[in-house]
Amino acid sequence: MDFSRLKEDVVAANKELPARNLVKYSWGNVGAIDRERGVIIIKPVGMPYEELTTDNISVVDVAGDVIEGSPTPSVDLPIHATLFEGFPDIGAVVHTHSTYATMWAQAGMSIPCYGTTHADYFYDSIPVTRNLAPDEVAGDFERNTGAVILESFKGKDYLATPGILVASHGVFTWGEDVWEAVHNAVVLEEIAKMALGTLMLNPSARELDRCVMDKHYQRKHGPGAYFVNDDFGHGIVDVKNGGGLR
Amino acid sequence: MDFSRLKEDVVAANKELPARNLVKYSWGNVGAIDRERGVIIIKPVGMPYEELTTDNISVVDVAGDVIEGSPTPSVDLPIHATLFEGFPDIGAVVHTHSTYATMWAQAGMSIPCYGTTHADYFYDSIPVTRNLAPDEVAGDFERNTGAVILESFKGKDYLATPGILVASHGVFTWGEDVWEAVHNAVVLEEIAKMALGTLMLNPSARELDRCVMDKHYQRKHGPGAYFVNDDFGHGIVDVKNGGGLR
Amino acid sequence: MDFSRLKEDVVAANKELPARNLVKYSWGNVGAIDRERGVIIIKPVGMPYEELTTDNISVVDVAGDVIEGSPTPSVDLPIHATLFEGFPDIGAVVHTHSTYATMWAQAGMSIPCYGTTHADYFYDSIPVTRNLAPDEVAGDFERNTGAVILESFKGKDYLATPGILVASHGVFTWGEDVWEAVHNAVVLEEIAKMALGTLMLNPSARELDRCVMDKHYQRKHGPGAYFVNDDFGHGIVDVKNGGGLR
Amino acid sequence: MDFSRLKEDVVAANKELPARNLVKYSWGNVGAIDRERGVIIIKPVGMPYEELTTDNISVVDVAGDVIEGSPTPSVDLPIHATLFEGFPDIGAVVHTHSTYATMWAQAGMSIPCYGTTHADYFYDSIPVTRNLAPDEVAGDFERNTGAVILESFKGKDYLATPGILVASHGVFTWGEDVWEAVHNAVVLEEIAKMALGTLMLNPSARELDRCVMDKHYQRKHGPGAYFVNDDFGHGIVDVKNGGGLR
Repeated sequence: MDFSRLKEDVVAANKELPARNLVKYSWGNVGAIDRERGVIIIKPVGMPYEELTTDNISVVDVAGDVIEGSPTPSVDLPIHATLFEGFPDIGAVVHTHSTYATMWAQAGMSIPCYGTTHADYFYDSIPVTRNLAPDEVAGDFERNTGAVILESFKGKDYLATPGILVASHGVFTWGEDVWEAVHNAVVLEEIAKMALGTLMLNPSARELDRCVMDKHYQRKHGPGAYFVNDDFGHGIVDVKNGGGLR
Repeated sequence: MDFSRLKEDVVAANKELPARNLVKYSWGNVGAIDRERGVIIIKPVGMPYEELTTDNISVVDVAGDVIEGSPTPSVDLPIHATLFEGFPDIGAVVHTHSTYATMWAQAGMSIPCYGTTHADYFYDSIPVTRNLAPDEVAGDFERNTGAVILESFKGKDYLATPGILVASHGVFTWGEDVWEAVHNAVVLEEIAKMALGTLMLNPSARELDRCVMDKHYQRKHGPGAYFVNDDFGHGIVDVKNGGGLR
Repeated sequence: MDFSRLKEDVVAANKELPARNLVKYSWGNVGAIDRERGVIIIKPVGMPYEELTTDNISVVDVAGDVIEGSPTPSVDLPIHATLFEGFPDIGAVVHTHSTYATMWAQAGMSIPCYGTTHADYFYDSIPVTRNLAPDEVAGDFERNTGAVILESFKGKDYLATPGILVASHGVFTWGEDVWEAVHNAVVLEEIAKMALGTLMLNPSARELDRCVMDKHYQRKHGPGAYFVNDDFGHGIVDVKNGGGLR
Repeated sequence: MDFSRLKEDVVAANKELPARNLVKYSWGNVGAIDRERGVIIIKPVGMPYEELTTDNISVVDVAGDVIEGSPTPSVDLPIHATLFEGFPDIGAVVHTHSTYATMWAQAGMSIPCYGTTHADYFYDSIPVTRNLAPDEVAGDFERNTGAVILESFKGKDYLATPGILVASHGVFTWGEDVWEAVHNAVVLEEIAKMALGTLMLNPSARELDRCVMDKHYQRKHGPGAYFVNDDFGHGIVDVKNGGGLR
């Protein structure tokens, strides 16, 4: 089987995280699934982004065995796998500890929908998970982290709100492909920063009216949508030409 | 008709938005009007700034028909058009979701005139619009957004205060030409940041005395003005030589 | 008379302001005095820093007449002149609206000495001027701004605390030469940022003990000083080689 | 004796401080110890990082005498020396006044462990020292600063929490070698920023559950650790090839 195209995308999308100032050192990862072939492609643990290549990116099969690349995939692999199982319509997951989103996650607070910037990408507030119970921490920690994310979306549309804060931890976003997932991670970080300032200026700032939320969601995603999405077909790191910014 | 000169300016001014850190992805746009020829030139929707050229920038006539360039102008075109109608002495409009200005817009608060930096560019506080009513949202959303901006300036001098916050949304600025409008957008963002910190340090910080406001306004704009404006005849992006910073 | 050496320094020091992120557009200026020859050399009003040269920098004599360079010196010239008169041991003045220092100035608050970073450069708190009275604004505004700065230092050592906030306006620093004055402007901005965060974390944060203030002042400036000052003999902009960063 | 290898590392690690935005001017230093040969290698006082070389870096013996390089080592040398004496398992110390960590130090507050980013590197909260007594300031100030750091770790594991805030001053971190110590300084600064925002959003934000702290500590440092550390075997400044970023 040949995953070269998807491997290229996952490598490039991982390099996008430091280029977009979402990570320090190796604090984040992008993973993607090829549902037909039953493999997840994900960043190896602890590897600096600049050393990532299509040769060392980890390729893992449904049994959890590494079949190509680095034998030590991200420790967050079980979280990615749980999301791919629970969210059948997504193709990629991004995890970061980006600064402002992590502030909200550490505060244990969901991010209210204060404006149209938020509403253009995330329907309603961006939720925060509950804290894990002691036995969930002691048990399969990463699997259980994935499980509380799914729990938070019970009865909610995970495509309309493509991201979540994990309490006391960081942020996960997703999308149809790696570029949409990375795009959502960049947007969520900016929204988190704006929302912090909004709350500081006005502790009783009102959330966007439901009718405006719906309007923004509909004009981008509804029938007769007329707001063309940003083009996010590639990143700003020019992987094929030395790795500088485009 | 040949709009090549104005098209060049609008393309360059749009590229100025990311260069000045006022936008992420394609979250902002610059539009200009040629009142004699009855056309508005504006960024196409969703297009990355680096791909903008004088060939794809949208040129729209008074009937709202695209006569040159990309057939899908920014969805904010009706807002620009409304401002050009209501503010007969302006030549260009800038819209962004710049971080600190958007915090104030989301908080639903006008920015008080706390200092001379503000007073050198904006007379009195920078207003915030009211929220749209549900039927205004359900109707022609963008036209109605333009209308509440005009409503906010009833009885006020839109040239003395060349910018406004749209509640729960973002910021609009304007000027005689694209460079003045962009300049005002950069200044408003910096003022918004300074004002946030001012309010955090001192919740009862006093607004500038009216006499100082007048003094600053007069020394730049009044008869016998002796404060020469910043030169804003071109941007920092060198469009003709590869698009890098000058 | 040949002022070429001092003109070079004033040009380079002005370019340092944007390079150190202390200004936007042309919001700041550096001026220096040659006391022997009775001239002040200062940035022309509104000129972009990148266009500054030893040919257009303004040279003004004691009568206030421009004898070389641009005929329109900064409107802040009378403030510089007042400081040079009142502070006989300084050779240069820097004025900016740097972001965090301006927050404190707009809040009308002096910056408490919260730590050793502050104490290494500024003895005790950094004062803020009183607001100008209406007749002082209506009269010679810039001269009167200089006068309230001098008023704030009555009975204080202007060399031990080489900077001040002007209420609702911005910041002035000074030094033996342009490099010391610019250095103090950079340090004051960083101290202002740290102090904002300190106050937000702990509204009753204690000021540094007087004995530590004295210790830090003495180890840098007292007899037997053993703390060698930072080398600030030149800036980070390489003026002679194209203007890039060194 | 030949210390060339360690000198190279200390030079490169010092240059890492400005490259990672932890210092302004010369506000920070890295020192390392060769315990076998009984020497400490440390940055000279006041020297700009870009001028540091293996020829001018100070090499000091156990008697405190400089045996190679610049004869004026950092004034913080006695602090480094005290830490090397009190913490027998460390090989390097970093001192900075990095912006957000200094805010906490000036506030006199330890940084609570609000999340897993913190728990991956620092066990429990990051402590703050007590203030020095007047006689400790008047006496051997730097030695006494080192002593209060050691005092803070009485009965605590200095390897599990490799950093501390010095009240009203700045931050010290340490590690097995210079790269681990610098890495901890970068991480501590980011944690300090996240914690400030967390506290502002939610003044009663809860600290991480002890069981999660233990889990994170064990998965990186415990028996059967499966979380591979970031690779921090070198910095981002390419010292051997002109000093640019890698």
